[in-house]
Amino acid sequence: MLYKTYLNRLSKAALTVGFSTCSRATNEAFLCEMLHVHAQSHKTMAKTKFEYVRQFEADDTCLQNCWVVVRLDGRNFHKFANLHDFRKPNDERALRLMTRSALTVMEELNDIVIAYGQSDEYSFVFKKKSNWFKRRASKFMSHVVSQFSSSFVFYWKDYFKDQALLFPPGFDGRVILYPSNQNLRDYLSWRQADCHINNLYNTTFWALVQQGGLTNSEAEEKLKGSLAGEKNDILFLEFNINYNKEPEMYRKGTVLIWHKVDESVDKKVITPDAPEGKNVVVKRIRKKVLPFHVDIIGDKFWEEHSEILADDS
Amino acid sequence: MLYKTYLNRLSKAALTVGFSTCSRATNEAFLCEMLHVHAQSHKTMAKTKFEYVRQFEADDTCLQNCWVVVRLDGRNFHKFANLHDFRKPNDERALRLMTRSALTVMEELNDIVIAYGQSDEYSFVFKKKSNWFKRRASKFMSHVVSQFSSSFVFYWKDYFKDQALLFPPGFDGRVILYPSNQNLRDYLSWRQADCHINNLYNTTFWALVQQGGLTNSEAEEKLKGSLAGEKNDILFLEFNINYNKEPEMYRKGTVLIWHKVDESVDKKVITPDAPEGKNVVVKRIRKKVLPFHVDIIGDKFWEEHSEILADDS
Amino acid sequence: MLYKTYLNRLSKAALTVGFSTCSRATNEAFLCEMLHVHAQSHKTMAKTKFEYVRQFEADDTCLQNCWVVVRLDGRNFHKFANLHDFRKPNDERALRLMTRSALTVMEELNDIVIAYGQSDEYSFVFKKKSNWFKRRASKFMSHVVSQFSSSFVFYWKDYFKDQALLFPPGFDGRVILYPSNQNLRDYLSWRQADCHINNLYNTTFWALVQQGGLTNSEAEEKLKGSLAGEKNDILFLEFNINYNKEPEMYRKGTVLIWHKVDESVDKKVITPDAPEGKNVVVKRIRKKVLPFHVDIIGDKFWEEHSEILADDS
Amino acid sequence: MLYKTYLNRLSKAALTVGFSTCSRATNEAFLCEMLHVHAQSHKTMAKTKFEYVRQFEADDTCLQNCWVVVRLDGRNFHKFANLHDFRKPNDERALRLMTRSALTVMEELNDIVIAYGQSDEYSFVFKKKSNWFKRRASKFMSHVVSQFSSSFVFYWKDYFKDQALLFPPGFDGRVILYPSNQNLRDYLSWRQADCHINNLYNTTFWALVQQGGLTNSEAEEKLKGSLAGEKNDILFLEFNINYNKEPEMYRKGTVLIWHKVDESVDKKVITPDAPEGKNVVVKRIRKKVLPFHVDIIGDKFWEEHSEILADDS
Repeated sequence: MLYKTYLNRLSKAALTVGFSTCSRATNEAFLCEMLHVHAQSHKTMAKTKFEYVRQFEADDTCLQNCWVVVRLDGRNFHKFANLHDFRKPNDERALRLMTRSALTVMEELNDIVIAYGQSDEYSFVFKKKSNWFKRRASKFMSHVVSQFSSSFVFYWKDYFKDQALLFPPGFDGRVILYPSNQNLRDYLSWRQADCHINNLYNTTFWALVQQGGLTNSEAEEKLKGSLAGEKNDILFLEFNINYNKEPEMYRKGTVLIWHKVDESVDKKVITPDAPEGKNVVVKRIRKKVLPFHVDIIGDKFWEEHSEILADDS
Repeated sequence: MLYKTYLNRLSKAALTVGFSTCSRATNEAFLCEMLHVHAQSHKTMAKTKFEYVRQFEADDTCLQNCWVVVRLDGRNFHKFANLHDFRKPNDERALRLMTRSALTVMEELNDIVIAYGQSDEYSFVFKKKSNWFKRRASKFMSHVVSQFSSSFVFYWKDYFKDQALLFPPGFDGRVILYPSNQNLRDYLSWRQADCHINNLYNTTFWALVQQGGLTNSEAEEKLKGSLAGEKNDILFLEFNINYNKEPEMYRKGTVLIWHKVDESVDKKVITPDAPEGKNVVVKRIRKKVLPFHVDIIGDKFWEEHSEILADDS
Repeated sequence: MLYKTYLNRLSKAALTVGFSTCSRATNEAFLCEMLHVHAQSHKTMAKTKFEYVRQFEADDTCLQNCWVVVRLDGRNFHKFANLHDFRKPNDERALRLMTRSALTVMEELNDIVIAYGQSDEYSFVFKKKSNWFKRRASKFMSHVVSQFSSSFVFYWKDYFKDQALLFPPGFDGRVILYPSNQNLRDYLSWRQADCHINNLYNTTFWALVQQGGLTNSEAEEKLKGSLAGEKNDILFLEFNINYNKEPEMYRKGTVLIWHKVDESVDKKVITPDAPEGKNVVVKRIRKKVLPFHVDIIGDKFWEEHSEILADDS
Repeated sequence: MLYKTYLNRLSKAALTVGFSTCSRATNEAFLCEMLHVHAQSHKTMAKTKFEYVRQFEADDTCLQNCWVVVRLDGRNFHKFANLHDFRKPNDERALRLMTRSALTVMEELNDIVIAYGQSDEYSFVFKKKSNWFKRRASKFMSHVVSQFSSSFVFYWKDYFKDQALLFPPGFDGRVILYPSNQNLRDYLSWRQADCHINNLYNTTFWALVQQGGLTNSEAEEKLKGSLAGEKNDILFLEFNINYNKEPEMYRKGTVLIWHKVDESVDKKVITPDAPEGKNVVVKRIRKKVLPFHVDIIGDKFWEEHSEILADDS
C-alpha cells in the first residue's frame, strides 16, 4: 500500500500533464527492467503496454451547481426482513439501525447537508458546490453505499440483540442531480409522500392480518382500491387504532441534519498564575448529526433550517 | 415494503407507457385523496406533483457487447491497516478476508465470470452479454461495492480472531468498459503487473526496516530509483530472502473463477421396491468459485480456462 | 420515406414495450418473408437479426430544468477568411451572414430564447423547460449546426456579392447545460468579454500592420503583454482611432432575441352587410427575431428583457 | 480570430494544469485591466469571474477501441421532397447529391473508412483507433452534420439544374458506438435491409398510384400486410416491372470507400543532364473515395475489401 500510493500519485500526475516525457521515461525504464527480472516469461512486456487501459475509464463528473442526491435501497429486503423476523408493519430496531448507518455516512463522508430515510431506503444530499472527489458520480455513489453497508453490519448487534445477522445484506445506489432548490425539495417531498402512503397501507394491512385474522390475500383484496379515509376507518372502527397517534418515525420517516451543539470539555491550561497547568472547563460549539421525524413537505422545516438550502451551504 | 413493491411496479409501468391516462388517473385520484387526509397542511399537494422528479434520473446503461469491470479500492486503507495492526508487508488475514468478501460478491450477484484481487483492491468482470439490471452502471457498481463492504465486516471475525474491527471501513468503486478480449486481458495484466511491482518494493522496504533496522525514510531513500535486480540483491544478500520463494498469493494476487465440482448428495428417493423411500447417494456437478494464485499475464491461464472469454460465457 | 416513417413508428413502439411478442412476431414474419424473396443470397437473414444494433444507441437526454446552450465555431476559419478575402480586423459581410444564418436557426428550430454571436462563433440558448426532441443533446446540437451550415451557404451570395464561395465550410458544435440563470448570464458574459478582448487586440494589430506598415510578427511582438490602455493609446496616438467609436457590432457582437412586432395584414372577411366578403386591415402581434449590438454583461439588458430568464419562458 | 487562437491555447493550458498560479495571475491581471478600461460600467468584473462556466462542459469522449458511427437523416424531408418536386419513388438527382455531400465529408474529415447512404440518410464510420479530436462525440457528430449540410446546398445546382433550392434544409445526427466488427457489419446490414424493404414498398406504391391510377390511400390499403412476393407480383403482373432489374442504386443504396487509384502527374525535375529542368510523367498512387451500389450484407464485399475492418485501418 505504501509504494502503491507513491506510484499512483506519480502516474496520476503523469496522466494529467499528458505523460510528460520526463516522468514517463523514468517510469518506463524502471518498469521494463522490473518486469524483465520477475516475470521472465513475458520478457517483451512492459507495464506501459498495459497502462493504456486506463484511457477506457469514462469521466462521470456531475454537472456543476446541482444538488447531488444518492439514494440507496435494500436489495431483496422483503426476504431479508422475513428471514430476520422483522416486526410488521414497522420494525423499530431495523429503522434505528438504518439511521445509525446513515449517520455514519454523513459523518465519514464530506459535504452531505441532509439525509432522509424511510423503510429500507435512504437518500443523501451533497451540497451544490461540493467538489468532493471532483464531483465524480461513481465516488459519491460508491462511498455512500459502501459506508452504509459496512455500518449496517457493524452496528447490527447494537440494535438486534436477540437476532443474529444471518448473512451480509446488499444495497443498491443511484445518483440523481437536481438543479434548483425547488427540485430538491420536491424530491424529498416525493420520498416522504411515499412514506405516508406506504405506512398507512401497511399499518392497515397488518392490523387486518395480525389482529383481524385475515390471510394476506384476503387483506390485500379488502384494501384494493380503498381510499385513505376508508383505511383510517378500518383502523379506528375495527381495531381502535388512531393512525395519527402512530409513532412519527413510522409516519414521517427520519431526517438527518447537522446541528450545532454546545460542548463542555475539560482541558488543562497553563497560565502565569498556574505554571504547572490547571484544569478548566472549555465550552465550544461542535456540529453534530441529529435525527428528526418531522414534516419536510411544508415550508416550516425549511424556514427553520434555512441554512440547508443556502447557496454557500 | 409490501405495498411499496406493488406501487413501484405500478408506477414503473406508468412511466414506461408514458403515464397512460388510465393508470395515472387511478393513481392520482388515490394519492390526492390519500394525502388530503393525512397531510392536511398540504391540501393542494398531490403526489404526482412530486413524481416529476423521477425524470431527472439519467440513463447509465453500459454499452452493449463490452466487458463490464467493477474495481473497488479500500478507502484510507493505509490508516485502516495501521490501526488494525496489519502485518507488513503482507497481512495474510486481510488478503484472505478480501478474497472471502469477493467470493460472496461473485456468488450473490449475477454474471461475474472472473475476479482479480491484490492489496486492498478487487476487480470483478461481468460477462459481455450480461443484461443484469439492464446493464445499468450504477447497479453493477453499487451492488458490488455494497455486497463486498457488508461481507468484509460480516466475515472479519473469521479471519481476525484476536483483533476487533474498530470501525466500519469504506471502499470506493468504478465501472470500466472493455470492448475486446485483448483489452480485458490487458486490464487484468495491468493489475497483476501492479501487484508484482508493489510487492517487490514493499517486501524489500519492510526487510530493510524490520530486519535491517532502517527508519522508514532511510529505507525509502535507499530504494529510490533502484532497479528490480538491486532489490532482489538486497533481499538475498542482506536478508537471505529469495523473492521467488515468497508465497504466490503475495506475488501474484488472487484470481477467482467458477469451477465445476463433483458433489455427492444424500437423497431420499421413492421407488417401486421401496415405496417408503430409501437413501441413495446422488452425484451431481455444481459450479463453485475457487481461488488461484497464478500468472494471468501469459497465455497459459487463458488457454486452460478458455470458457472465460468465450463469447457465450 | 413514406414507408420508412410507418416502419419507424412500428419498430420504435416495439422497442418501447420491450419487443412484445405479438408485434415482434408479426414484424419478424413479414421481414423474413420479405428478405427471403429479395435477398436470396442471405436466406437465413431476418431484419430482426440486425435490429438489435439499435440497442447500442446511448440515451443523451439533457438534465431537466437546465438551460441548454449550443455553441458552434467555424472550422479552420482563419484559412477560410484568408481564401475568401475577409476584411481585417472585421468583415461586416461575414458577420451579417453569420447573423442571418443564426436567425434562420432560431426561426426554424423550437424553444431558442436568445442567441449571441461574435467572430466565427454563435451560441444558442434553449429554454429550461424545453422538451424539444425529448431534450436529446444530439438533436439540439445537430439541428443547430446543420441549419446554420446550410443557411450560411444558402445566404452567402446575399452578403458576398463579389466573392464566390469557393468550397462548403464547416462548423463544429457542442452542448453545455447551465442550471441557474446566473450561470447562463455568466456564460454569455464570458463570450462577450471574449469579444471585447479579441476585438481590441485585433483592431490594434491590424492598424499596426495595415496603416503602420509593420509585419505580422512585428505587430505581434509589439503587442505582447501590452495592457488595454496601451492598445488604446497606440490606436489613438499613432492612428487617430478612438476605439470607443468603432462600430458596436464589432465591439459587442450580436444578440438575437424575439420581439413582438405589430403587423397589419389585409384579410377578406364575410359580414352580414357584406356577404360576398370585404377586405379589412387586421392588426396583429407577431413574434420576430431581431438583432441588437448591446451590452449583455450588465443588468440593464436583462431588466429590459426580463421575459428571457422568466421561468415559464 | 488571430488573438483568439492564442488566448484559447493559453487558457486551455491553464485549465489543464489546474489554473497554475503563474499563468492565471498573468491572465487575470491582463484581463482585469483590459476590462477596466473598455467596460467601465463593470469595473469589478474580471474575465476569470466568468471563465468558470467552462467547467460545465461535459466530457463526451467515445469509448476507446469501438467503431464510431455517425448517422444523419434529413429533417422533414417528406415535405422538402414535395416542395422541390422530387421524382417518386426515387429521385436520382437527390440521391447523387446526397452522395456528393457524403463524399465531401469523407474527404474533409479524418479517419472515415466507409459510408453508407440510402433515401435521405447517410452513415459514416470512423475507424476504431481514431483519435480525431480526442474522440469527442460532439466533434464527430457536428463536423459530419455541418460539412454534409453545407455541401448539400453548395452542390445543389450541379444536380438540380432546373429546380432552385427554396430554403436551406436541415439534417439531424447521432453517434453510435460498435465494439466488434460483427456489430458494425450488422449495423450496416440493418441499414441496407431497410433500403431493400422501403424501396420495394415505395416502388410498388408509386406504380399503383402513378400508373395504376389509385389514390394514395387506396394504394396504402392495398399494400397493407402484403408480402414481398405479392408486391413483386403486383409490379410484374400489373405493371410489367421486374423489380430485380430496377437500378442497383435504388435497391442497394450507396457505399463509399477509399480506393487506390493510379495517377499520372506532369512534374518538372532537375537532373545532371538537364540542369534547367525537364518535364517527366510521374506515376503515383493516390487514395480516392469511390461509390458502389453493391450488397454489403453478405461476406463477399468484406472479403474483397478486408482492409476496412482490419485492426489498423
